Amino acid sequence: MVKARMAEAKVWRTCVGMMANLIEEAAFKFTSEGVKMRAMDPSHIALVDFELPARAFEEYSVKQSTVLGINLLEMNKIMSRGKAEDELILELDEKQNRLGLTFKGASTRRLSLPLIDVREVELPEPKLQFTAAAEVSAGVIQDGLKDAEMVGENVKFELNEDGLTISAESDRGTAELKLSRGDKALAKLNVRQAAKAMFNIKYLSDITKSASSTGLITIDLGTDLPLQLDFPVAGGKGRIRFLLAPRIEAG
Amino acid sequence: MVKARMAEAKVWRTCVGMMANLIEEAAFKFTSEGVKMRAMDPSHIALVDFELPARAFEEYSVKQSTVLGINLLEMNKIMSRGKAEDELILELDEKQNRLGLTFKGASTRRLSLPLIDVREVELPEPKLQFTAAAEVSAGVIQDGLKDAEMVGENVKFELNEDGLTISAESDRGTAELKLSRGDKALAKLNVRQAAKAMFNIKYLSDITKSASSTGLITIDLGTDLPLQLDFPVAGGKGRIRFLLAPRIEAG
Amino acid sequence: MVKARMAEAKVWRTCVGMMANLIEEAAFKFTSEGVKMRAMDPSHIALVDFELPARAFEEYSVKQSTVLGINLLEMNKIMSRGKAEDELILELDEKQNRLGLTFKGASTRRLSLPLIDVREVELPEPKLQFTAAAEVSAGVIQDGLKDAEMVGENVKFELNEDGLTISAESDRGTAELKLSRGDKALAKLNVRQAAKAMFNIKYLSDITKSASSTGLITIDLGTDLPLQLDFPVAGGKGRIRFLLAPRIEAG
Repeated sequence: MVKARMAEAKVWRTCVGMMANLIEEAAFKFTSEGVKMRAMDPSHIALVDFELPARAFEEYSVKQSTVLGINLLEMNKIMSRGKAEDELILELDEKQNRLGLTFKGASTRRLSLPLIDVREVELPEPKLQFTAAAEVSAGVIQDGLKDAEMVGENVKFELNEDGLTISAESDRGTAELKLSRGDKALAKLNVRQAAKAMFNIKYLSDITKSASSTGLITIDLGTDLPLQLDFPVAGGKGRIRFLLAPRIEAG
Repeated sequence: MVKARMAEAKVWRTCVGMMANLIEEAAFKFTSEGVKMRAMDPSHIALVDFELPARAFEEYSVKQSTVLGINLLEMNKIMSRGKAEDELILELDEKQNRLGLTFKGASTRRLSLPLIDVREVELPEPKLQFTAAAEVSAGVIQDGLKDAEMVGENVKFELNEDGLTISAESDRGTAELKLSRGDKALAKLNVRQAAKAMFNIKYLSDITKSASSTGLITIDLGTDLPLQLDFPVAGGKGRIRFLLAPRIEAG
Repeated sequence: MVKARMAEAKVWRTCVGMMANLIEEAAFKFTSEGVKMRAMDPSHIALVDFELPARAFEEYSVKQSTVLGINLLEMNKIMSRGKAEDELILELDEKQNRLGLTFKGASTRRLSLPLIDVREVELPEPKLQFTAAAEVSAGVIQDGLKDAEMVGENVKFELNEDGLTISAESDRGTAELKLSRGDKALAKLNVRQAAKAMFNIKYLSDITKSASSTGLITIDLGTDLPLQLDFPVAGGKGRIRFLLAPRIEAG
């Protein structure tokens, strides 16, 4: 038995929207402690690591650990049918091999999604030695990426004692966004050692575009290491983490 | 002479928008009592029955009953040029064989539409023995149809003592909307005998999509009978009625 | 050295947006007195004449008159990345032969644009004997043009003692907008001699569509003369002027 109820459908909707930008099929693991999903995108450049504990739900009943194979694009279509303030109930229909999603608002609307076979792969949690971290307004990151998109395909992230720089350069021009220590949009800055690395803009856009622009993102960076982006979910009770492989500059 | 003035262009705009989703050409009959139009869609699956009495207008002068052949798509384009709060004046220009539509707001804008020949067909008013009726928020019906669209081509309407159910089912999943007696969005429920019937979603979407989501729709239903949907116009002084043929389930 | 700072990016954004609808490449002349740009559209039907004096900027340093060749479409893309309330700094990077555009808001974002070679043509200021003028709400002109677009390719402007008329006519119907002396949207009317002339709607739409609908346009008209449209910039400190050649009616 799997049944989980949350007060606001938009929490699940935002999570599914962010995952669906990178991954088409996913295995959600429901245990008594909560829901987890870890998967890589088809080209193995980005890893998604999602966790939402039982206490993030108003009601949560999972008797036995259960893995549900979900087509994220289909689930995203269903979630986009809900209103932000609707109550959401997820419920496994074992007989029909479907997941029911019920929205309670002006009416009660139940949509169901056929479950699919998803090969569950054990992905070890990567251990990375990041040397700098920052907590930044999501809207600012989205702006910096859109600027960079006009110029090139890759974008450089830099964290040092002064702050965060996001930059791109090509024959078409240059783009550079700076957040300095003290700027309101730079909520935290923690630099053990200055770090910089380059990433593919397309992936970063897919990761960040469905995030609420008013939320915060935690960035962890190490020179030429993958970029780690953490988005808090349900007021910080859960999170979606993305790890994105760097582009190593020639020379 | 045909001249009719209404305080808010949006009343006529909504009506024309709803009709134009189903019908391309229509014969509007202006009599001293008001305006009427009855027509079937090209595939004879839906009937539109429109009535707006003279008292729904601020000024209404029709000396002699006159039938005006109108291309609804063209009239819809013109109406979409008006502002919701503009005053609207409809006036026949017999010399030019055109209908003038004047919007009075920040400026005075007069657009004219060539009249066309439309074969006027006498459509008898169907007598149907509906057994259940409900008055429902239009937005809820629109939601139920959009849900159902994700799943299949047909949608089932059911009215019984408990309330209204709109549902669809296919290999792609299921969708079910319920309004229960007591729900705010179910303004009235009147069931002599429980009734259910199935309809084509595409037609229902065309009928309902231009309605204001905050308005009310009156639904009349009988098992395997056509569905009757009434939309009040001009605060209930007039109405647009749609009758839609059912899809009979095999077996 | 060329450096100019303005309090609100939207002032420059609106100007660039309006120019970019007509012209792809432009030579901006920065002198100690301010910025000027005059150019004709590729088909030589419309002339753009832009002036923004030094006092329209918070900070303005131009040591030596400098002509900057700009691809307006590229600059328009960059300007659309700024927020309306951002501060904007334009700064010439002589070494890189680029123009830097810096937006200061929640973050500091610097984008740069490669300068291009634009043949600077001396366009004499046309001397035209207009006989009638009016100051009109931009939104009303935009409405009149959209109405006329539904009907034909050309639109007639008429100014006389009664007011302004914008009209079009074809087999498809007629469209006529009237603003009368005393209408709020007709801020000024000054008629020495009644005037009318016909213009291509497509050009007029391109000229007016990026203007703020709440702003005012000054219209100067003479029978069969070009139409002159003036849009105030930065609270009237500068302006964009458009001159559009008339269509002469046969007969």
